[in-house]
Amino acid sequence: MCEKFQMCPQFESAFQILSKRWSGLIIRVLLEGPKRFKDISVLIPNISDRMLIERFRELEAEGILVRHVYPEVPVRIEYELTEKGRMLKPAMDEIHKWAKTWSLCKEEVET
Amino acid sequence: MCEKFQMCPQFESAFQILSKRWSGLIIRVLLEGPKRFKDISVLIPNISDRMLIERFRELEAEGILVRHVYPEVPVRIEYELTEKGRMLKPAMDEIHKWAKTWSLCKEEVET
Repeated sequence: MCEKFQMCPQFESAFQILSKRWSGLIIRVLLEGPKRFKDISVLIPNISDRMLIERFRELEAEGILVRHVYPEVPVRIEYELTEKGRMLKPAMDEIHKWAKTWSLCKEEVET
Repeated sequence: MCEKFQMCPQFESAFQILSKRWSGLIIRVLLEGPKRFKDISVLIPNISDRMLIERFRELEAEGILVRHVYPEVPVRIEYELTEKGRMLKPAMDEIHKWAKTWSLCKEEVET
């Protein structure tokens, strides 16, 4: 049995967060800066509003994003990455580089 | 509407692969080198054999890992990352760094 390598629990936890469907894409979109709900949902085709709300709650609970409510008329709500969220940029950039290198094509992945 | 940023389809495809439950952890284990089925399943607690087989098939279909069958008695089967799989190391290292920085704790993520 391979003793020397042990799965790092922190790595495992990070992957549990990132591997929730849509979470990675939401983080990727918000790395561009704070955005309103509908601007985010437009940029992530196929995600339902209900799912987006659920992922926002989870990412907020993880301290990865915050929800700003601006008391304007009508009220304005924006979602923004925290520092913890923004520090995922290097990982996202590496995934992006990998995807480009291997020119992953969406159709191939879906079939 | 935020026109300038468009979700990169290749990034989206990459995340579809990586965000399948367990795939990231399987890749992380195999970055240590080729391994047999039971050595991998021991290193990823809670994964069922059925799920591990399913993820192997998907990752093999994506060209991320290969299955070597050695005609010994008993036959020996090992799983190994391809170059495409090994090139995920920088991304995995960045996720690991992030996880350590924010000392994610598994229990917190699960509750």
